[in-house]
Order: sequence, then structure tokens, then C-alpha cells
Amino acid sequence: MELNPIIADRWSPRAFDAEATLRPADLTLLLEAARWAPSHGNTQPARFVVGQRGDDTFRRIFDVLRPGNQLWAGRASVLLLGARATADERGPVPNSEYGLGLAVQNLALQAVDLGLVTHQMGGFDHEAAARAFALPEDVVPVVVVAIGKLGDVGILPEELQAREKRPRERKPLSETVFTSTWGTPWTPGADA
Amino acid sequence: MELNPIIADRWSPRAFDAEATLRPADLTLLLEAARWAPSHGNTQPARFVVGQRGDDTFRRIFDVLRPGNQLWAGRASVLLLGARATADERGPVPNSEYGLGLAVQNLALQAVDLGLVTHQMGGFDHEAAARAFALPEDVVPVVVVAIGKLGDVGILPEELQAREKRPRERKPLSETVFTSTWGTPWTPGADA
Repeated sequence: MELNPIIADRWSPRAFDAEATLRPADLTLLLEAARWAPSHGNTQPARFVVGQRGDDTFRRIFDVLRPGNQLWAGRASVLLLGARATADERGPVPNSEYGLGLAVQNLALQAVDLGLVTHQMGGFDHEAAARAFALPEDVVPVVVVAIGKLGDVGILPEELQAREKRPRERKPLSETVFTSTWGTPWTPGADA
Repeated sequence: MELNPIIADRWSPRAFDAEATLRPADLTLLLEAARWAPSHGNTQPARFVVGQRGDDTFRRIFDVLRPGNQLWAGRASVLLLGARATADERGPVPNSEYGLGLAVQNLALQAVDLGLVTHQMGGFDHEAAARAFALPEDVVPVVVVAIGKLGDVGILPEELQAREKRPRERKPLSETVFTSTWGTPWTPGADA
């Protein structure tokens, strides 16, 4: 039993290929993947601003990134600002931050299917992003997603090369998945 | 160009097969999919409480669902309470609701790969859920995910049968994806 490859193979590199560009059809497909994510009562809170390397939107998204992210994110083919609509014509939208997460993960996995890589960043000036794109008051920026092709790790500054090669790590399920009551680890087959 | 099938084929049915149970290996794989999702600085905020139909945990998750969800969710094989850890030993965890969304979407898509269906619900008594499982103060319930096998639509009450057969609908990308500035629709190939 194995994870589906688009789930197993997703990771968040920093070494983007500075020459690669996204085909319009591929970028459309990524946004379609996000579009078909589920949401609370189908409220669809995910909103995006798309910049492609070389255009003004890309530059303005890049400009609000934290310096640590600016070290590498400028080589991405696309910078996507992801925001959540906190209200619609029926009133407040519940769990809009959660709903944006569902949508962006669909996009990130579709990217793997297309041979692309993504790196999601919370590290940017959220207020500056809202100003730069004149976001309405009920639209809140959450994430910037770098999208592109994987490049050679040698293009990165030395300390980022080391991070890039570090094995991926996660907490064991015994620390995050419980049954019966909080703190009682769930184990396969033991509950009944 | 088409969406990856696990993204295209995911939907949120209500007609769960009341006889189906999940193999422990399948349930583990779903939780592994959630585990490998990305998160802000690898803070991994997703937490879960697992109930399987017939056990006490399942009953207690079911009991906090809104009546409209209780009409159908009791036939699921698993009810999973999804919560977000808002802090860890390093301090507050940014975007924990978003991070839980990333993790649950991984799980929902892995379920499609296994021939299973999922239905995420925000409609439950969040305070009662926190009490029922003695969640710590920095762990906030967000979602209940019903997981199981698709059953016959005829098992549903009549009004839910109609909802089950309704075509899935989403806003067009022109209403949610912009470039240059807010409200200017992004179109493939038009930006440069």
C-alpha cells in the first residue's frame, strides 16, 4: 500500500529553474484544480492574484516577500498570491482560511502531476500585499505560492543548499492522531 | 490536458454504504497522506480524533454533528474530527487553519485513490466536540470528515437524493483569479 505518487512526490524546493516558463494551459489546469476543491456550503473562498516572472504583478508579489524568501523565489515561473474571501452575499464565510488550504493543496498536487514544483510561503508582508493589489476589506492574503520547474541545487546560496538536501521530516502519527480521548494514540486495528 | 483523476473524481456524497468498513491499512494510508502535507515552517498543526462506526469515539463525534448531517453521516465507516494546534513549543503557529486544510485535502484525495469517498463538514457543535474529547486549549476543532464507501442513493431521504444528483458547480475563474490588480480577470496567455 503506497501513497498516490502526486501526494508522495510533492515537496517544497527552493531551487527553481530561472529559465522555465509555464505553458498557459498548465497554469489554467493548476487554477482549475484549485477551483474544484470542496468548501463550506460551496462558498468557494479561495482567491488568487497571478504573476508571471517578468511581469509587473510578479514583481509586486516578489517585493512583499520576506528577505529570506527573496533569496530564491525570484526564479519561480509564477508567484501566486492566495487570499481568502471572508464574506459573500449571504454573509460571513465560515472556515475561509481552511477552504483556501483545501484549494491550494489541490493546486500543489496537480502541479506534481504536470512535472512542476511549488513552494508555499506565509513569510510576506500581508498588509503590503493587500495594499499592492487593492484587496477589498473582506479579502485577506494568506499565502504566496511559488510555482515552476525544479532547477539545479547549485544555484542556491550555500546555506539553502544544505536545507534543500535535508531529509523531509514529520511527527509520527502517534503524536497527532488519537482515539477515545485526547492523547490516546490511535493504532491501526486496535480500536473497535 | 486534464486534471489528475484523484482531483477530478473527488466529490462529497452523502450516500455512504452502511455495511462498509475501512481496512486498517487504508485508514493508516489516509492519515499518512495528511501527515505529509506541507505547513508553515513545518509546524504540522493538523490533529485528528478517529472514530470507526460501532465504537464509542464514532458515536461521540456523531453526537456533536448538526441534525442535518446526522441524517446521513452515521452510515460512514469513519468519522474523523480534524483540529488545529494553534501553538507549539516555539510559540503560536501561524496559519494553522490553513495548514489543517492542506492536510485534509491530501487525505481526501488519497481516499479517492483507494476507491473511498469523503465528506467534510463544518456543521457541528465545536464547543461540544472540544469538551467530548478534552481537547487542550490550544487545539481548536475545525472539521468532521466522513469517510467510507459510496452507497446507493436510494438509502437517502428524498430531499437529500435530489441534492446528491445535482451537478457540481463552481464560480468561473474570471471571478476568483486576477492579475495586475484586484478585479482584473487573469486569462491564459494574455498576461506577459
